[in-house]
Amino acid sequence: MDCEEIIADLRRHREEQLAELFELLGVPSVSGEPDYREEVARCASMVAATLGRAGLEEVCVHPLPGHPLVTGRWCHAPGRPTVLIYGHYDVQPVDPLGEWIRDPFAPWIQGDRVIARGASDDKGQILMHIKAVAAWLRVRGSLPVNVIFLIDGEEEISSPSLPSFLREQRESLQADFALISDSAMWAVGVPAITVGLRGLCRLELELTGPNRDLHSGNYGGAVANPLEMLSRLLAGLKDESGRIQIPGFYDRVRPITDADREQMAAIPFDEEGYLRELGLAAGWGEAGYTTLERLWWRPTLEINGLWGGFTGVGTKTVLPAKAWAKLSCRLVPDQDPGEVVARLEAHLRSMVPETVTLHTRRFPGSGCPVVVPRDCPFLGAARRALLATYGREPLLIRDGASIPIVADFKDILGLDTLLVGFSLPDARTHSPNENLHLPTFFSGTECLSQMLANFATMSPPP
Amino acid sequence: MDCEEIIADLRRHREEQLAELFELLGVPSVSGEPDYREEVARCASMVAATLGRAGLEEVCVHPLPGHPLVTGRWCHAPGRPTVLIYGHYDVQPVDPLGEWIRDPFAPWIQGDRVIARGASDDKGQILMHIKAVAAWLRVRGSLPVNVIFLIDGEEEISSPSLPSFLREQRESLQADFALISDSAMWAVGVPAITVGLRGLCRLELELTGPNRDLHSGNYGGAVANPLEMLSRLLAGLKDESGRIQIPGFYDRVRPITDADREQMAAIPFDEEGYLRELGLAAGWGEAGYTTLERLWWRPTLEINGLWGGFTGVGTKTVLPAKAWAKLSCRLVPDQDPGEVVARLEAHLRSMVPETVTLHTRRFPGSGCPVVVPRDCPFLGAARRALLATYGREPLLIRDGASIPIVADFKDILGLDTLLVGFSLPDARTHSPNENLHLPTFFSGTECLSQMLANFATMSPPP
Repeated sequence: MDCEEIIADLRRHREEQLAELFELLGVPSVSGEPDYREEVARCASMVAATLGRAGLEEVCVHPLPGHPLVTGRWCHAPGRPTVLIYGHYDVQPVDPLGEWIRDPFAPWIQGDRVIARGASDDKGQILMHIKAVAAWLRVRGSLPVNVIFLIDGEEEISSPSLPSFLREQRESLQADFALISDSAMWAVGVPAITVGLRGLCRLELELTGPNRDLHSGNYGGAVANPLEMLSRLLAGLKDESGRIQIPGFYDRVRPITDADREQMAAIPFDEEGYLRELGLAAGWGEAGYTTLERLWWRPTLEINGLWGGFTGVGTKTVLPAKAWAKLSCRLVPDQDPGEVVARLEAHLRSMVPETVTLHTRRFPGSGCPVVVPRDCPFLGAARRALLATYGREPLLIRDGASIPIVADFKDILGLDTLLVGFSLPDARTHSPNENLHLPTFFSGTECLSQMLANFATMSPPP
Repeated sequence: MDCEEIIADLRRHREEQLAELFELLGVPSVSGEPDYREEVARCASMVAATLGRAGLEEVCVHPLPGHPLVTGRWCHAPGRPTVLIYGHYDVQPVDPLGEWIRDPFAPWIQGDRVIARGASDDKGQILMHIKAVAAWLRVRGSLPVNVIFLIDGEEEISSPSLPSFLREQRESLQADFALISDSAMWAVGVPAITVGLRGLCRLELELTGPNRDLHSGNYGGAVANPLEMLSRLLAGLKDESGRIQIPGFYDRVRPITDADREQMAAIPFDEEGYLRELGLAAGWGEAGYTTLERLWWRPTLEINGLWGGFTGVGTKTVLPAKAWAKLSCRLVPDQDPGEVVARLEAHLRSMVPETVTLHTRRFPGSGCPVVVPRDCPFLGAARRALLATYGREPLLIRDGASIPIVADFKDILGLDTLLVGFSLPDARTHSPNENLHLPTFFSGTECLSQMLANFATMSPPP
């Protein structure tokens, strides 16, 4: 199907695309921090308006227990496939705020990048899909396939409300496959399709020692310090070789096969450049595995936050009453998030000394690890569109991050998911000065308009 | 010397004493936090005014590199001993602020206690000395001994400017001994004289890993997490039996003698009550030592603060760029603070893995450990005053905390120090809701007026 007119239309509307991008990026839709609840809701309304302007129908903001979810559809192509396009308008917190060049929610252009929280993850990428659809509807009055948009407001907190929404709306969400752009290309101009994702589970710990903060002179030496006990507890979670010590943690981890190693060998991974870009002299991880294996095939246990005692400027010789940590695990097939978090909790309880009290807190929503089957017909359609736009075959990669909804699509709706992203490895998602490469934003939008056409002519799924 | 009139005068002026106490407690003179610099200076002026109203002469606020020091004197008793009365008007930080019942700098009375930061440590106690002197001068127009007041504004940050001040003012600070009330009685009505103090040194650490905060999915497993490395580093500072692993740390520690054990046996220490009051099921410390030995005779290494990554409400799956800790050691004779902090630093450097970078920061000012000779004549004078006021012999105790200036008095001015305090063990010094027991504030003031008389008749120091 010829897309030249569509692409020409997209190029004529770049100013408008940029303006809408800036508008979306201006809203601090931080789903993980309760103070931003109203801003998240405001962003949902803005996304709904954008869908409406694009020509989508039945646009709806669904109030969920956490944050709203936005849907819209265009389903007037009988006999053609239906694509469920998923993305999220919520964003990560911005701290450390001091490391941002400017306000993370006052987007600005620097070189060929737009800098703002959510620029690549995922506001920029959802807008690319909306604009590809808008151009089709404007130029042709119709789409080559049926499309359902599902724009989440809870992705950054692991989409706790989405599974039950999918169950309730199973009928109206009937589709042939899901399409998500929330991942990265391999490099500028080097497209990639993601065929594997890690899962996620999270746990917060609170250790309590004495019933109040104490003077370290009057009590130090005779009372267990919760910060010291927490350090010991956390240090004991891995051995010297980086192997996680939770009993049974690796039981369900699939071993790396020869086919996996072949796939990895095809990836032009520049380890030296990877470390240099991070300012590191050396990597570190589980002994016996390469960096790519550690990132794509092996599970992790990370301390995401740790605090207690006096943390201000100067000194205070306190022996604090409490200490806290936030932990998370990235999981690989066939680990189960619920099982792993229970094992972590049980292990911590078995290790905690009697001198302190452990309280744990789980977080609703957790992501299962995913591997995308490589024989899906939609993979071919996507490859052809990426080849047409970028002049080269996409790499088939994995991603160490998590998109919990991909496993839910499979379990609840029976859908496989095509993961094709237009972010870049240095987009600094989740970090200060997150950015979006504007030339890729525009070329990716064109590519997606082509992909819609390709989906129309692919062999129907078996 | 008969003190009945003095004591009667003190009793007539209790309302005024309380009003001046509240005025002093209303100033947030937090020396350890740069934002409070002007409030500390304001408190210094207020202390000077209080000295002036009491009848002291040559009252002066000395601007020092950190915070001001206040002096005043009355030296018209030729042939009588000269007492150098030291105290401090600066206070500890107040966090965690949320655990205070009310504003820590808006003092209030609850039962028989005044609650406010600095109530016992040390504003209340310096005011007791000033008021004892004021009553003598009001009733008799003279003092039984010569008195020099030295009120520090940097005690809670280890008095970094004081040693050079003592050196410069050596002539004008000639005295027979020093007297400090910055410690506690054993219990309500059970007086104590402190004959040993621990020293102190402090170090702040910063571990840096990657050059920015990273997404724990995209990088987790392949990059050293500074929070994990810090936990390992801190956990390795002690072995399972609580013994500090810094090479040479214990080299200069005096062993506990039979005489020490006899002294300890005389102390009615209620270990069960001690733990119950802290809400603890068990104590914890260096194996092979009792609680009192751990507090009075053994050195410590404590984590006073620890932080890094995401510490807000909710979750953020970040692999942070940096992690921090604040450490301090309490020292015993004959450990040297400079040597110990250097050993700690060197040990940390030798243990830090190559995947992260360690920066350390020392803090100016550090305290040497102290043992007060028990044959000083002033000890007898103090014992008699305490016996007269409280009807029982004072206990001779040690204190696990530090008063750096005591070692400086000895080294620079050649003075031994009498440590007799009127705080109580549950005064919550350095903790939220610090308080001062009002009946002891009044009785202590009377006792000090008697002590001044006793000093006049003691045998002159050899």
